[in-house]
Amino acid sequence: MAGPKDLTHLLSEEALARRPSPLKTAFKYFADPNVVFLGGGLPLADYFPWNKITAESPNPPFRNGIAAVPQSVEEATQTVLAKHSSDNGHHQDIPLSRSLQYGFTEGQAELLDFIKEHTKLVHNVPYEGWDIITSIGNTQSWDATLRTFTSKGDTILVEEFSFSSALETANALGVTQFPVPMDDFGIIPEKLEDVLTNWVGPKPKLLYTIATGQNPTGSSLSSERRAAIYKLAQEHDFIIVEDEPYYYLQMDTYTTDKSAREGKAVHTHKEFLNALVTSFISLDVDGRVIRLDSFSKVLAPGSRVGWIVGQKPILERYIRLHEVSMQTPSGFAQSIINGTLQRWGQDGYLDWLIGLRQEYTHKRDVAIDAVSAHFPKEVSHYIAPVAGMFFTVQFDASKHPKFEEFGKDPLKVENALYEEGLQEGALLIPGSWFKAQGQTNPPQKEQTVPGSENTIFFRGTYAAVPLDKLVVGIERFGKAVTKSFGLN
Amino acid sequence: MAGPKDLTHLLSEEALARRPSPLKTAFKYFADPNVVFLGGGLPLADYFPWNKITAESPNPPFRNGIAAVPQSVEEATQTVLAKHSSDNGHHQDIPLSRSLQYGFTEGQAELLDFIKEHTKLVHNVPYEGWDIITSIGNTQSWDATLRTFTSKGDTILVEEFSFSSALETANALGVTQFPVPMDDFGIIPEKLEDVLTNWVGPKPKLLYTIATGQNPTGSSLSSERRAAIYKLAQEHDFIIVEDEPYYYLQMDTYTTDKSAREGKAVHTHKEFLNALVTSFISLDVDGRVIRLDSFSKVLAPGSRVGWIVGQKPILERYIRLHEVSMQTPSGFAQSIINGTLQRWGQDGYLDWLIGLRQEYTHKRDVAIDAVSAHFPKEVSHYIAPVAGMFFTVQFDASKHPKFEEFGKDPLKVENALYEEGLQEGALLIPGSWFKAQGQTNPPQKEQTVPGSENTIFFRGTYAAVPLDKLVVGIERFGKAVTKSFGLN
Repeated sequence: MAGPKDLTHLLSEEALARRPSPLKTAFKYFADPNVVFLGGGLPLADYFPWNKITAESPNPPFRNGIAAVPQSVEEATQTVLAKHSSDNGHHQDIPLSRSLQYGFTEGQAELLDFIKEHTKLVHNVPYEGWDIITSIGNTQSWDATLRTFTSKGDTILVEEFSFSSALETANALGVTQFPVPMDDFGIIPEKLEDVLTNWVGPKPKLLYTIATGQNPTGSSLSSERRAAIYKLAQEHDFIIVEDEPYYYLQMDTYTTDKSAREGKAVHTHKEFLNALVTSFISLDVDGRVIRLDSFSKVLAPGSRVGWIVGQKPILERYIRLHEVSMQTPSGFAQSIINGTLQRWGQDGYLDWLIGLRQEYTHKRDVAIDAVSAHFPKEVSHYIAPVAGMFFTVQFDASKHPKFEEFGKDPLKVENALYEEGLQEGALLIPGSWFKAQGQTNPPQKEQTVPGSENTIFFRGTYAAVPLDKLVVGIERFGKAVTKSFGLN
Repeated sequence: MAGPKDLTHLLSEEALARRPSPLKTAFKYFADPNVVFLGGGLPLADYFPWNKITAESPNPPFRNGIAAVPQSVEEATQTVLAKHSSDNGHHQDIPLSRSLQYGFTEGQAELLDFIKEHTKLVHNVPYEGWDIITSIGNTQSWDATLRTFTSKGDTILVEEFSFSSALETANALGVTQFPVPMDDFGIIPEKLEDVLTNWVGPKPKLLYTIATGQNPTGSSLSSERRAAIYKLAQEHDFIIVEDEPYYYLQMDTYTTDKSAREGKAVHTHKEFLNALVTSFISLDVDGRVIRLDSFSKVLAPGSRVGWIVGQKPILERYIRLHEVSMQTPSGFAQSIINGTLQRWGQDGYLDWLIGLRQEYTHKRDVAIDAVSAHFPKEVSHYIAPVAGMFFTVQFDASKHPKFEEFGKDPLKVENALYEEGLQEGALLIPGSWFKAQGQTNPPQKEQTVPGSENTIFFRGTYAAVPLDKLVVGIERFGKAVTKSFGLN
């Protein structure tokens, strides 16, 4: 395996402007036994008011499902965190005296080790010198990524429909977003090639993609598409930012035959790992992928702990940024998450992820069954997602009885459906709310026309509500669609 | 009390470019009982693996000192955090199902209430409509402040010597720093007035000041100076950013008479509150002060929880930024800190801060006693700090025997002392490492000359080391100074 390509020419003005702190040179004496170090403004750990923290979790292999609350102390994983490592701490624990102190911007070693081991198991990154640093979740990682690679006036590639907050982050930084055409299965590599071949002016620095369980469309890129897109990144020299919060919410294939569902389920660790889709980072021979991962969807969003995978020299620029902004995820979060994961072990964590897969597969099945049962087939199109929290249903706006009256404006049909849904008592999000806004000023010779102009869609989620409410909500929205299209 | 002035004309391009998310309009239906909300990608709290978290702390009034570890369960404050508020939670607790979920970018209500009550006790902010939001510590707050007020090419005012990371944050964003002359007691208002009166071009948007226990100088601005500086901010229409991590590390007045020390100590809550210096926010009739506060120095840096005090319309711009970057402090941190503080109560928290004051007063006394005993009086100048973690000792470089040989370069004397210190086995940080770098290109007609050109200084800390090591370190550095200046 070779090392990564030098991609420093893709760094932003801000990233290039960061100077090393002279204080760093002094810190090499911090642990020198011959020097009394009066250099750093660190409070003594004696003054941290927490002597002990404990956290109780269910125990692998989670036989009663990941949501089952342990009924006794014996059924639970007890994480007991001490202030000092000598105070009866588990040998892989991060003692509070360290996690609650300054330092370790890249993250605490024990937690990084666990995540790195897990990353090796899953992604098998094909170059020497990749690494991992912690972040405060993918939203922060994306903001840091924009600051590391883009300067005001730059253009980036985004999916035609994307997470609106992510687009807004780029917008406020003065970074233009060029939308790449998608279909039911995500970015269309041939269309992306057209975009790049016809590009006028400085090439885009990066492609931002929510490659698995895409938000909002629910689509997931196949291995073939990822390979084709990676090849384009090499040819046109851009970074691929794979924002993958939903990667571990992959599900068994949907089938309408309920009796066949159990047969499709993943059970062993090997089956689980084999069933995961190819990630961009696993194709990354150049070191041009920045992978954004997070515990938000697999453990808890409020933990505010994520991680970034990439080549070391680029991660070093992130560390310099983190030093002068958020520094590091909370020590409470790092100690508790690490303590729990170290007690579960890599196998126990895979058990947890398999349990999560079962839960989401079931929720997805219930949602798609309900869509199939309650949405009018004449005007609706949907595919069952294979990952993530979202499903989408597309409609042909031109079939709406008021299409002419609305001046053939599909957005007016979309709004009519949204309002009718609220009348019936169900809310799904109109797809146009996620549309990338960069189209008006594309630095292109000719513009590609994505999809049919009259296709509109709505995004629903099966993640946030219990199953009974999920079915009621979908039934209500289906009724609203039926009514609005005059099909009842 | 009147409301704040409209200061939106001072916002940055980035802050002004932020658009409200259309998704926000949908979220008003989130809690509507008539609507099944399938809009948001939130995981169910059932899948958060932590059912219970407990944290053990010492108990107010901390009679054995804040560093004393509780010897029994009865001596400790036991914070037991449940997943759901109904699960035996303390009524002011933040349940894990909420703190570990998405949402509440401004911070969790219970914690904000506690901090707001504390802020009222201490600062008595003199306008209607001030508010508080959480941050991830003052480093992140400062980064967010720069992004909220400054655009590339802007100039800000900073203390002539300042926290190098804070200056570097501005530097990388392309923001020029103009250094304001200081003396032993911080910014000199008359010099600042000169700077502003002679200013050419667009006025600076803000003044960044570490007003209490300044880093690196250890100086603290008097009430009179703060009032004078505030008046200048009104006249020249800029924001004052008071970065106050050390505000609660204020100490009793230093005296060489050891027997008089106990008599100067603060004991009651009233004495403690009265002894605190006037903050800028307590003078802020206009709403032009942004106060950055943090638990880093008073509880633990790794908690990564701070807060920002300011007028609501400006804090709203921070919230929009936080939504698309770090979002919110970790839910673990918010639940644990809030749980502990709610059990201590406002009075218990003041007890903690008084305990901290006693610890730091003693450490400062030991440090200054040692400086007095071991530094050669002929070339050294120092004053005992009244706040913070740092003391500084100034030297007249022109008295160094090699001054001529060094080409009259005071920085070479500084470096010689640094190296001699390391030889003796003690490290203090050279003052020049903290010098603001904006001088080379000041947008000014005439430049003020700060202090004597031949004065150099070193920053030491009494915070990070036990008392015995502190004395050894100071003794060694004093010996190095004595040697280097040829005084032995």
